[in-house]
Amino acid sequence: MKLGLLTAAFPDLTLEEVAAWAASEGFETLEIACWPAAGGERRRYAGVTHIDVDALDAEAVHALLARHGLEISALAYYPNNLHPDGAHREEVNAHLRKVVDAARELGVGIVGTFAGNDPTQSPPENMRRFREVWPPLVSYAEERGVKIAIENCPMIFSYDEWPGGTNLARSPAVWDEMFETIPSPSFGLNLDPSHLVWQMIDYERVVYDYADRILHVHAKDMEVNRDGLYRNGVLSLGIGWQVPRLPGLGEVRWDRFLAALYAVGYDHVVSIEHEDSAFEGTDELVKRGFVIARNALRPHIA
Amino acid sequence: MKLGLLTAAFPDLTLEEVAAWAASEGFETLEIACWPAAGGERRRYAGVTHIDVDALDAEAVHALLARHGLEISALAYYPNNLHPDGAHREEVNAHLRKVVDAARELGVGIVGTFAGNDPTQSPPENMRRFREVWPPLVSYAEERGVKIAIENCPMIFSYDEWPGGTNLARSPAVWDEMFETIPSPSFGLNLDPSHLVWQMIDYERVVYDYADRILHVHAKDMEVNRDGLYRNGVLSLGIGWQVPRLPGLGEVRWDRFLAALYAVGYDHVVSIEHEDSAFEGTDELVKRGFVIARNALRPHIA
Amino acid sequence: MKLGLLTAAFPDLTLEEVAAWAASEGFETLEIACWPAAGGERRRYAGVTHIDVDALDAEAVHALLARHGLEISALAYYPNNLHPDGAHREEVNAHLRKVVDAARELGVGIVGTFAGNDPTQSPPENMRRFREVWPPLVSYAEERGVKIAIENCPMIFSYDEWPGGTNLARSPAVWDEMFETIPSPSFGLNLDPSHLVWQMIDYERVVYDYADRILHVHAKDMEVNRDGLYRNGVLSLGIGWQVPRLPGLGEVRWDRFLAALYAVGYDHVVSIEHEDSAFEGTDELVKRGFVIARNALRPHIA
Amino acid sequence: MKLGLLTAAFPDLTLEEVAAWAASEGFETLEIACWPAAGGERRRYAGVTHIDVDALDAEAVHALLARHGLEISALAYYPNNLHPDGAHREEVNAHLRKVVDAARELGVGIVGTFAGNDPTQSPPENMRRFREVWPPLVSYAEERGVKIAIENCPMIFSYDEWPGGTNLARSPAVWDEMFETIPSPSFGLNLDPSHLVWQMIDYERVVYDYADRILHVHAKDMEVNRDGLYRNGVLSLGIGWQVPRLPGLGEVRWDRFLAALYAVGYDHVVSIEHEDSAFEGTDELVKRGFVIARNALRPHIA
Amino acid sequence: MKLGLLTAAFPDLTLEEVAAWAASEGFETLEIACWPAAGGERRRYAGVTHIDVDALDAEAVHALLARHGLEISALAYYPNNLHPDGAHREEVNAHLRKVVDAARELGVGIVGTFAGNDPTQSPPENMRRFREVWPPLVSYAEERGVKIAIENCPMIFSYDEWPGGTNLARSPAVWDEMFETIPSPSFGLNLDPSHLVWQMIDYERVVYDYADRILHVHAKDMEVNRDGLYRNGVLSLGIGWQVPRLPGLGEVRWDRFLAALYAVGYDHVVSIEHEDSAFEGTDELVKRGFVIARNALRPHIA
Amino acid sequence: MKLGLLTAAFPDLTLEEVAAWAASEGFETLEIACWPAAGGERRRYAGVTHIDVDALDAEAVHALLARHGLEISALAYYPNNLHPDGAHREEVNAHLRKVVDAARELGVGIVGTFAGNDPTQSPPENMRRFREVWPPLVSYAEERGVKIAIENCPMIFSYDEWPGGTNLARSPAVWDEMFETIPSPSFGLNLDPSHLVWQMIDYERVVYDYADRILHVHAKDMEVNRDGLYRNGVLSLGIGWQVPRLPGLGEVRWDRFLAALYAVGYDHVVSIEHEDSAFEGTDELVKRGFVIARNALRPHIA
Repeated sequence: MKLGLLTAAFPDLTLEEVAAWAASEGFETLEIACWPAAGGERRRYAGVTHIDVDALDAEAVHALLARHGLEISALAYYPNNLHPDGAHREEVNAHLRKVVDAARELGVGIVGTFAGNDPTQSPPENMRRFREVWPPLVSYAEERGVKIAIENCPMIFSYDEWPGGTNLARSPAVWDEMFETIPSPSFGLNLDPSHLVWQMIDYERVVYDYADRILHVHAKDMEVNRDGLYRNGVLSLGIGWQVPRLPGLGEVRWDRFLAALYAVGYDHVVSIEHEDSAFEGTDELVKRGFVIARNALRPHIA
Repeated sequence: MKLGLLTAAFPDLTLEEVAAWAASEGFETLEIACWPAAGGERRRYAGVTHIDVDALDAEAVHALLARHGLEISALAYYPNNLHPDGAHREEVNAHLRKVVDAARELGVGIVGTFAGNDPTQSPPENMRRFREVWPPLVSYAEERGVKIAIENCPMIFSYDEWPGGTNLARSPAVWDEMFETIPSPSFGLNLDPSHLVWQMIDYERVVYDYADRILHVHAKDMEVNRDGLYRNGVLSLGIGWQVPRLPGLGEVRWDRFLAALYAVGYDHVVSIEHEDSAFEGTDELVKRGFVIARNALRPHIA
Repeated sequence: MKLGLLTAAFPDLTLEEVAAWAASEGFETLEIACWPAAGGERRRYAGVTHIDVDALDAEAVHALLARHGLEISALAYYPNNLHPDGAHREEVNAHLRKVVDAARELGVGIVGTFAGNDPTQSPPENMRRFREVWPPLVSYAEERGVKIAIENCPMIFSYDEWPGGTNLARSPAVWDEMFETIPSPSFGLNLDPSHLVWQMIDYERVVYDYADRILHVHAKDMEVNRDGLYRNGVLSLGIGWQVPRLPGLGEVRWDRFLAALYAVGYDHVVSIEHEDSAFEGTDELVKRGFVIARNALRPHIA
Repeated sequence: MKLGLLTAAFPDLTLEEVAAWAASEGFETLEIACWPAAGGERRRYAGVTHIDVDALDAEAVHALLARHGLEISALAYYPNNLHPDGAHREEVNAHLRKVVDAARELGVGIVGTFAGNDPTQSPPENMRRFREVWPPLVSYAEERGVKIAIENCPMIFSYDEWPGGTNLARSPAVWDEMFETIPSPSFGLNLDPSHLVWQMIDYERVVYDYADRILHVHAKDMEVNRDGLYRNGVLSLGIGWQVPRLPGLGEVRWDRFLAALYAVGYDHVVSIEHEDSAFEGTDELVKRGFVIARNALRPHIA
Repeated sequence: MKLGLLTAAFPDLTLEEVAAWAASEGFETLEIACWPAAGGERRRYAGVTHIDVDALDAEAVHALLARHGLEISALAYYPNNLHPDGAHREEVNAHLRKVVDAARELGVGIVGTFAGNDPTQSPPENMRRFREVWPPLVSYAEERGVKIAIENCPMIFSYDEWPGGTNLARSPAVWDEMFETIPSPSFGLNLDPSHLVWQMIDYERVVYDYADRILHVHAKDMEVNRDGLYRNGVLSLGIGWQVPRLPGLGEVRWDRFLAALYAVGYDHVVSIEHEDSAFEGTDELVKRGFVIARNALRPHIA
Repeated sequence: MKLGLLTAAFPDLTLEEVAAWAASEGFETLEIACWPAAGGERRRYAGVTHIDVDALDAEAVHALLARHGLEISALAYYPNNLHPDGAHREEVNAHLRKVVDAARELGVGIVGTFAGNDPTQSPPENMRRFREVWPPLVSYAEERGVKIAIENCPMIFSYDEWPGGTNLARSPAVWDEMFETIPSPSFGLNLDPSHLVWQMIDYERVVYDYADRILHVHAKDMEVNRDGLYRNGVLSLGIGWQVPRLPGLGEVRWDRFLAALYAVGYDHVVSIEHEDSAFEGTDELVKRGFVIARNALRPHIA
């Protein structure tokens, strides 16, 4: 297994700068942010363009990474692919296809993204739209030898995404419907255990149950604020008690999570995703956060 | 403390029949269903009229209860008092006022009901409407010497009530806003610990924190189906894993819950609410269910 | 559900005496010991003959039970039906058939027994013999309208039964093979949760997984002696740490076990089996033990 | 085993009144308060004289108890037998001897008391005085066929008893020294599990380890106030977090505690001691408390 | 955050020797022992003089530390500042003021010490003396730009310090009184989680509740000897079951403790305090102990 | 303490190759496989000959190890020393003596082996044979200044070793009999905590209880497959749920296990034994496994 990081936490650094620092700290892979350079998306940890797929220079990217001895674990673009606004949805779907094209051109096997969700509609409603939107997207990727890895983040952090969040792909029950709809081996998960912690879903069992769907792994951690849970209860959908942390500072037992991954034969990448508000604000703090996370994971990875 | 039951589980029995049976089994109080006799409401355990407040004969009711040595712990009418349809909302609000009138006439101090909720709107939105609708309702009751006890059931069981349920009054954070809006001592809780179990809110702490707001107590129990929780996670809002049970068959530690009630000086009624699908279908089964629940609670009540 | 007891704990009382006492203490059913009157079996709680099937007077039995308002929940004969000694095995199989005959004549639907086991052979070896011996036995019962309920006691208490015990039917994995071999609905379990406690098998999950195979229920309890477990470990097969107790004095959560039974629709009998060495030696002590067990179970049964 | 109560909770009732009520509620034994009638002691639950040993009319006591079908489980006198003030100590020791005399005359086998303690001195210092004071007291009782049962209450509730409390006999380490000093079988424990709960001593293990020293059993319960423990820690000696409760309302698992007592062959009395502030103030409240406690224990006792 | 150590574990090494070794093993800061060189104090881990504040050569100290690339996290002097003997108390208070002077001269912002305690007096009594002694001491420091960090060690290990220990500042309840008495921001805690473990106080909650009072952090670990706790109970004040260990060998979850510190914005020093008897006796063993502790903490610190 | 590994996981590498790699990865000691070069034993992780004791060149071995700066922690030969076949048993006993001779010649103080067991006989039967076979073996070693360290692996993985496994020395109860039979200080344990995990024996308590018998320590880890345990129960002797893992990927708390070893003064070697099927098949995978295990243990060892 290899240890990498998702570049989206460094919106102000160039890919070269990120690569240089990451390599110097012993990271082996990058999961590279590929939002549209034209931008527009403004939520935290999104809208970052470390590879501009509209102006891809594959050789330059390869050269850059080779200079630092790094590999690309996946291209990353996490929009709302089931956005209720049709025009917006088609726009992000279209950009996703471009990221797939870029992956093929770069020889990168995986593109990470969200299933998307209309937060105002129930899961069954969203599943109906999923069945329309997603099969052609996966076919597009499959034909190009690229796999789509859906991250299991519910994307609900505040009343802005209430109540359904902007990513349907959050639980085993939903994944079963997704994979029944699209059995293609080019469609799977970018598994992040942190979102399972606060949903109170056993992440070790998930590894065993969905072993053949785990295409990529995100390492993020989570704390449940006990007092917040008492005051709001689970019906508040995490609002008031969901606390993202860096790996090693939260409640995930990384030794056992990685042990499960080894047991099922997963041998790709563990890519640290940084969303811990205690290590934000300056690149220096972000880097300190990544180092702590690396230290927590590195010993278990060989 | 006294042990009673909510009559709504016996839609096909007369009040006399319910009273006779309840008294013979050692119950001391009845919480009497007062939905409009004209009916209309068709959800399970609702729409029952054991006292028709549109045609109240207080003396007859008193005589009936006296015959069986029973008291009335509260009048029960649980509609959606914040229904998004204005006409419907005003209709149920109006009937609620009639139930308050009946309580005054009967000398019953408490009317149990729901705060109500527009399930399609977020909690802050619903709280805005709460601030309009509820102050005059409580004033109406207060002026008549009647207290309004809001049950803390979220009223979400299926996608029909998705995502917000039909009763906002579900958690400490919400209660705090409610009681800040309406500080009147005539406004409080009909506390049911079962709904706190699956919301993962500590029901013992609730007793201590809201001691002076506990006007009435519902005894219902709850199981969390572990496999359902694994498959759906807490974001499914209980769908697939919330399992109502009779007291003594679920996860509530009744000894500790009642110990907390004694500790804070609560000395009114514990009223069994029956919603266990394993004991439904015939009056015989419903009665067996009440007997099991009574056996679980009776020893702790004196 | 009804509450009963297994008469084998009263080897020195007549059926009349047992029935009179049981009825006076509120038991509703008897599970009647039917070992051969000629005797021979000498282990504790076996070899008792409260009905002599070789000299059955069905009318007298019915009259006796009617006098005390009791029903028969099952006939009980628990030998080693897979005994390695062929002659002995055929003898006990033959007596088992007589007990089935008696059940038919008495109108009793269930005969409780053991699958049996050659303790010196491995489970796969014993399963081979099971496939020869048991299908005709179940057919014999099925043809007579009688169901065979196998108790899940491993029957290993000391080195005398080392290592396999004298009853193969101890775990879900074995049951699956049994029921695959004999899918007949006349073949099922006399489920006793106590043996699952020390085998560290979740008895609530067993109720849900084997709901349609639960023909009868034994109520016995179990303690794991922690110090004995430390000294011997699970490889000692319970020797040194398996401590049978009366229901209410052990580790079984009877409220949750019975709640599971209610949830799956089980509505026959819970029959107390008494093997607690702290309440042995005199009929008086045995009776005190049964009373404590009854008190623990009675409130949950209606 | 029998179920009884300690009469000290009824300072304003006569022995006749206590006996009449206790018998009517199904209690079988009384542990009778024998403080000096002249009084003086003023702490709660002390200083009560239901038998005046200075003016004992044994026949009258026997007649009174016979009228109500009750037995005396023990005589109760709980002063500070190691009081630092010599004159006071000799006075209470002398009264203790009179209670022993009364026990002999009444044919009661057990006198319950405290070891006593000088709270300002360390345990080793107090043990030194114990070795002087107690051997003759036990000899006095032994010669009269009476056993001394020391309750294991540390007697520290506030800074008045700081830091050592007024009863040394609180833990296994201390008991070992006590019983090494006085091996007499006439010297043992009046075991109360509640004091072990907040000392974080395993009460089930105590039953097995001190089986032959358990002469009498007190049933009182205990809650640890978690927030009080957080704020004060164990060094505060219970102040701020020790909460006495009635059996059935606290943290003691009575089923397992009594199961342990049965397992070691204890077959005397379980005597309810009432010190729950939620059920104090009127005789009516005290009685309600005893009834709840009786209900919690009664089913397990036969 | 930085990782350092308290030099008191090396009584036989010079500051230069300690600094050289610490720097070579990757430590970044020293918390330097400043007991009076004239000595006198003889308890383990006390009485050490790595800087003689009576003969301070600030330049030499700075040069020494600069040679090894180390910083001073705090000056350390832990006497009984509330000693019952007035002369002794004034002597140690006077030396504390000298350590404050030294800190100012060295540009060190923090002096670590104990509140002190008269172990024979109750906490309220000691708090009375605290209110006299401490305000001027804190003012003295504040005027010099130095903060006083009180370690939360109860300083009770044997009957010598019975019952109150020699440091009052042990629990949230006491801290609240201390900080109410002295609200100055120059007065806070040198927080050591190990002492909270055996007091059964939640150290994570302490971090959140006292975030703005945490001036310095000690890393020591603790085991509760379960058998010792059973035998002695919490009333023994840790005697027989309090087992100091090195970080990484005890019960503190350092990942979560440090996660809490990061969450509240603590960004000073974690200073290892070595009191593990398994690593004492030779400087070699002490160093091995520090290395194990460093390995446990280092990965979490960036 | 030192960190080493058992060479048996590298059957295809020479001792030189193993030593070179081990040293380069920071291991300090080797536990060298000494099965007969003629071979014959074919189970996984056995039958390996890194030192051929039939053709020992002690100087060459010393030179080889010196080249890589390694020490030998023990010689390893793990046959069934109580094999039921007399000829085979004598053969392996004889080879064991040769390994002892080699140890003496190499100046290695410890030979690790199994007690052996006839799996078809009960523990008491095997203990009888133990009393014949083992005393002369230990005497042989003792006379040569070599200690015999028995590993506590039950050696039962499938029905081939059913039911008793091929190594009696599995639990405290057995060890007590072994050490009573052979009190010699030259006889002790090669303690492996992993086998205690699935036997549900507390490995920390074992360290304290058998401190003076721990001659060598194996670091292997273990997972209990919960679903396998549910299906098979403990009577299946681990079949279906015993899952060996590498240290750091299983359920052993290595920090606390090593803390206990430090506490009792153990200061020899922790030797990693590799039997994790997720890291088998190629030398590359085996090495990755050792590296993960090293990373888990290394920080705690100094």
